[in-house]
Amino acid sequence: MKNFFLPLCLALTGILHAQLHPSLMLTTATMGAVRKGITEYPLLKSSFTEIKRNADNAIKAGINVPLPNDGGGGVTHEQHKKNYQNILACGISYQVTKDERYAHYVKDILLQYAAVYKTWPRHPKRKQVPGGKIFWQNLNDCVWQVYVIQGYDCVYDYLSVADRKKIEADLFEPIVKELSEVNEETFDKIHNHGTWSVAAVGMTGYVCQRKEWIEKALHGTNKDDKSGFMAQLNELFSPDGYYTEGPYYQRYAILPFLLFAKAINQYQPELHIYNFRDGVLKKAVDASLQTTYTNGAFFPVNDAMKDKTFESEELVYGVDIAYSDMKAGADLLDVARKQNKVIVSDAGLKVAKDLSAGKIKPFEYKPTWLSDGADGKQGGLGILRSGPNDDQTCVVLKAAAQGMGHGHFDRLNMLLYDNNTEVFSDYGAVRFLNIETKNGGNYTKTNDSWGKQTIAHNTVVADKISHYRGEEKAASQNAPVLIYFDAEKNFQVVGAKEDHAYNGISLLRTLILFTPSGTGFLLLIDIYKANSKESHQYDLPFWYQGHITDKSFPASINTTSLRQLGDKYGYQHIWLNGEGRPGTANGAITFLNNKRFYTTTFLADTSMHIQFVTSGAGDSEMDLRNEKAFILSEPSKSNQTFLSITEPHGNTDTIAETTSASLSKVKDLKLLEDKTARTVFEFVYGSKTYRIELNYNDHDKFIQIK
Amino acid sequence: MKNFFLPLCLALTGILHAQLHPSLMLTTATMGAVRKGITEYPLLKSSFTEIKRNADNAIKAGINVPLPNDGGGGVTHEQHKKNYQNILACGISYQVTKDERYAHYVKDILLQYAAVYKTWPRHPKRKQVPGGKIFWQNLNDCVWQVYVIQGYDCVYDYLSVADRKKIEADLFEPIVKELSEVNEETFDKIHNHGTWSVAAVGMTGYVCQRKEWIEKALHGTNKDDKSGFMAQLNELFSPDGYYTEGPYYQRYAILPFLLFAKAINQYQPELHIYNFRDGVLKKAVDASLQTTYTNGAFFPVNDAMKDKTFESEELVYGVDIAYSDMKAGADLLDVARKQNKVIVSDAGLKVAKDLSAGKIKPFEYKPTWLSDGADGKQGGLGILRSGPNDDQTCVVLKAAAQGMGHGHFDRLNMLLYDNNTEVFSDYGAVRFLNIETKNGGNYTKTNDSWGKQTIAHNTVVADKISHYRGEEKAASQNAPVLIYFDAEKNFQVVGAKEDHAYNGISLLRTLILFTPSGTGFLLLIDIYKANSKESHQYDLPFWYQGHITDKSFPASINTTSLRQLGDKYGYQHIWLNGEGRPGTANGAITFLNNKRFYTTTFLADTSMHIQFVTSGAGDSEMDLRNEKAFILSEPSKSNQTFLSITEPHGNTDTIAETTSASLSKVKDLKLLEDKTARTVFEFVYGSKTYRIELNYNDHDKFIQIK
Repeated sequence: MKNFFLPLCLALTGILHAQLHPSLMLTTATMGAVRKGITEYPLLKSSFTEIKRNADNAIKAGINVPLPNDGGGGVTHEQHKKNYQNILACGISYQVTKDERYAHYVKDILLQYAAVYKTWPRHPKRKQVPGGKIFWQNLNDCVWQVYVIQGYDCVYDYLSVADRKKIEADLFEPIVKELSEVNEETFDKIHNHGTWSVAAVGMTGYVCQRKEWIEKALHGTNKDDKSGFMAQLNELFSPDGYYTEGPYYQRYAILPFLLFAKAINQYQPELHIYNFRDGVLKKAVDASLQTTYTNGAFFPVNDAMKDKTFESEELVYGVDIAYSDMKAGADLLDVARKQNKVIVSDAGLKVAKDLSAGKIKPFEYKPTWLSDGADGKQGGLGILRSGPNDDQTCVVLKAAAQGMGHGHFDRLNMLLYDNNTEVFSDYGAVRFLNIETKNGGNYTKTNDSWGKQTIAHNTVVADKISHYRGEEKAASQNAPVLIYFDAEKNFQVVGAKEDHAYNGISLLRTLILFTPSGTGFLLLIDIYKANSKESHQYDLPFWYQGHITDKSFPASINTTSLRQLGDKYGYQHIWLNGEGRPGTANGAITFLNNKRFYTTTFLADTSMHIQFVTSGAGDSEMDLRNEKAFILSEPSKSNQTFLSITEPHGNTDTIAETTSASLSKVKDLKLLEDKTARTVFEFVYGSKTYRIELNYNDHDKFIQIK
Repeated sequence: MKNFFLPLCLALTGILHAQLHPSLMLTTATMGAVRKGITEYPLLKSSFTEIKRNADNAIKAGINVPLPNDGGGGVTHEQHKKNYQNILACGISYQVTKDERYAHYVKDILLQYAAVYKTWPRHPKRKQVPGGKIFWQNLNDCVWQVYVIQGYDCVYDYLSVADRKKIEADLFEPIVKELSEVNEETFDKIHNHGTWSVAAVGMTGYVCQRKEWIEKALHGTNKDDKSGFMAQLNELFSPDGYYTEGPYYQRYAILPFLLFAKAINQYQPELHIYNFRDGVLKKAVDASLQTTYTNGAFFPVNDAMKDKTFESEELVYGVDIAYSDMKAGADLLDVARKQNKVIVSDAGLKVAKDLSAGKIKPFEYKPTWLSDGADGKQGGLGILRSGPNDDQTCVVLKAAAQGMGHGHFDRLNMLLYDNNTEVFSDYGAVRFLNIETKNGGNYTKTNDSWGKQTIAHNTVVADKISHYRGEEKAASQNAPVLIYFDAEKNFQVVGAKEDHAYNGISLLRTLILFTPSGTGFLLLIDIYKANSKESHQYDLPFWYQGHITDKSFPASINTTSLRQLGDKYGYQHIWLNGEGRPGTANGAITFLNNKRFYTTTFLADTSMHIQFVTSGAGDSEMDLRNEKAFILSEPSKSNQTFLSITEPHGNTDTIAETTSASLSKVKDLKLLEDKTARTVFEFVYGSKTYRIELNYNDHDKFIQIK
């Protein structure tokens, strides 16, 4: 693994630059243009109007600095969160309007914090040791400081020297100590919590001119680049800009990276931080956007809140800074338009101005392989896409590394999106964010027992045991291996294997997005091989959205009582609604979702049975949603190839009361040859027979479709 | 009951008017203006463009008149449906463009139908006796003719006398015979099927100049006004324009009324059909719109597809004709804008023109009591509404009559809408409309066993038996009685009673929409009294949307297995997830729905237990959705008053990750006095105590709030 280093001496001398205030997102040099832009460009104007409204509301409401007491979503938690937002809103409003009431608010509230901060004990509801002070998590304290230091920078020139001294000595110094010493372990973590921590300390260092803080932030407490910002930049992103925890946390993690990088760029432009590691920060913004579907929602792999979209504040920063500072394309303006917000800064000015000038292009979603791991060799995310942004088919193969503590045990998981919605979905995290009555707003226990387990995902489970037995440490030792990716032909294909999820079982999945000639819709062809010398039970669930409207085989449905499907590894959270056996060579299940039909036609045999299931068992706290799946299950096989084709077709118009193409055109799916290194199969679509060959070990002839 | 009659002689002489073609929705007199309007008014233009595109596609696809074979949603069903749409689209396109290719298409397809219609047997999949010919239901045959006769009228002048003769003799005559003689029973029904039938025959009579058909259509086969259009107008709508089957069927039923009325008005303007019965047709359009929520969806009481909105074609006709012919207000333009479509006719022209002129006003949703029954004394629908159209709180009390075969056994059912979505909801019908694989697109068996049963609704069930034991005939004998409605004060209230749903049990429900002073949100106060001399089990379900996030009492949740809640009257379709007992004087349940919290605080006692349930048991065909309810259950009481307050509060912003006001402010709900004629209770909201008195028998002092 190749690491990139910044010369330490350069970092130390560079601080002599730019001692004007503000010099973070807003700068004295560009304030005039930003002020003017607010009057000229609608999006900058509305963005500032919102900030000013928040600032006005803050002044109106008065200052409230309560003794910290509550967990996430609780009263004091939300108040301190509001306070840092208010401090920044008033700081920006002061810089734009020069109305001293805003600066006065920031001064007063910071002096109030300075008066009490050192008297506060550890947070009574602290989540970890030593934990936070203002909030239950040290993480939230770091975020607080990242916002507050920007607000402080905005009013710096307004403050008297004595006030500055008091705020720095009684608030920022102890906070920096709290972050970098008391919580040194977090500060030195190669993890998004670490990034928030170093960004808080580093940005505070720049604004308060403390070289020691900057050095620590950039190079770790030991200044050896084994921790700190540079180490994080080297290790947390892959060469493609993918962040190992997955899209939901990539979004979250990216903000302190961008804010701190912007500060570094202002104070030490000679470090060329945006070019560091071949421009990894820009790649990170790109990767973040490419891991959304067209509805803006991030692929909810690993722990993820499913309603999070690229409209979130972090990506507003990402899009604006990438566009203004990193030469990103005009298609980012499409995202900015959907965000309907820009940063009030020179970056936001540029975006708002170019949007006004009509430079917008549709956002370019691209089929892509995003490698994972600092070396790019820890698997990755395969993304196949086809169709316009208003009706795109998108397939995701999750072949990434474990992704640390928020990772799910879902090697070779598959997601399907179509027609602006989820089709085969991931449950995401089990969490009620900021809902204090639900485990304090934190992940629920069922997140571990259900959300993370393999059976909650669209991938093979052997012997009803999760991948790596659900053990993070074991799972972190190995990543899946990409075997093939190609999106250049008239079809798209991604294949990856995972040999370590189970002892003695090799998993190999190939996904193909294929348009039969002369049709408007695509087929998702899924070839999932599980090979072993021993016999195993293999289960492959398809967690679908919508309602089943047809199936090709009878099923026995449990009408009077339901039982759990198992007692551990997530099976205890599944109700078994019924079972059926296709018996013959093919089975087919049709479901209706968002007014479009989907038929999954799959290879079957006499031993395969299909389980219809619903999540929600074993749920004493009533945390779970009722999601539905059909599970293709083989009770005892050594080698098993799950071969299926999912076809979107037809539609039903509930207003006009018409239905079209309610029948699938896929039939006669046949496996012609199936070896370790080679699979050949055919199927009929309409009246045409297609034959597909896969040669897993021959990269040049990996796939042939006839 | 007062009936209105048209003089028969007038109806007979009137036919001498207007023998020009076309003279239905389009008329020779207004064609020039319509043609011009298409070039000038965007909505008329886009509406015509769509029709013309359909017409062009029809010509391109060629003619296909298959031997009828399939049920709803099947291939021949959809083809014949498409054919009547094509005939009308080509007819209109011919009139607008005078391009003879369109007229030619209509001629050809009608001659093809004429060549084979008489050779067709009864439909092989007929739903009833004698059943349809072109479709499985006679109803669909009627609809076919209503559309086709309009298309024929448009190309009448293009056709040779010989072709007209052939089409009328070999197609329309046998169809009229089929509708009015073979299916005479349907033709003479006082029911929407009858309306489609008389409209088809009557409109055909006008266009083909057959007095006999017109007379039958207007006055019934015996011409005694015991059946036919006039009888339907007298009996199917209440004086307020409410149609007894409920909003979903009102929408459906209204179209043949309007089309036939428009025809009558064109051919026999001296009948003043629009003024008939104090303008009941306009009232019917009004009532149809007033029985939607702000998202456009019809209240799904009785058999109803839940995604049906006022965008449906029937209401496009309703809005346009009401606006142009019946002096409806400019607020209908708001609906037309949302429909994004007008009829290509003089009515559509007026709407499109006035929209272009900016005459639009927000649609005026009004709190209202819509009486049911021809005499207006068969109960009705109570609708309370408050707030702007973009965030309206709406409460519905279903105290209407049974509504014939599509009626549900849900006396005093309550629906709550808020924040643009359902909060307490009705399951609607169990049906997959036009999905042939789901019982041929017809209502499923579970519609009877679940959808219609009382426990599927938000109303009291005694002894786990449905109202009127689920027997339509018994239920049709009695309707609930309105006891009070007032929407004029600073609160709104509706109360109704039902004494016949059970022998010896009197049900009385009062719903109040109340804004505590100084708050933005409303409270829904629900006082539901069940009084009897004997002891009964009383269950009151609240079918809520969203996810429960808090409750004030412990519950025992079934984690390893689920059982059915009962074995009949819909209870067999319910899984019991768990149970709890508030024990103390009040219980409270909070759920999160569309990012807003709702807390239902209810009066409890030591015997009350709360059941948490999910629909979906006893469902061998996998027809049901998993909906959720909490059921307030008293195992053995003679008199029981369910008293609850539901408060919308706070919100959670999943993008910004903030939560506000997650706690309810309602507490200390206390029943101070509770007699047959009087209920007095109080509760605390924030720091203020409110005391509410209800005097059920004293209309002047019915309600007092202090």
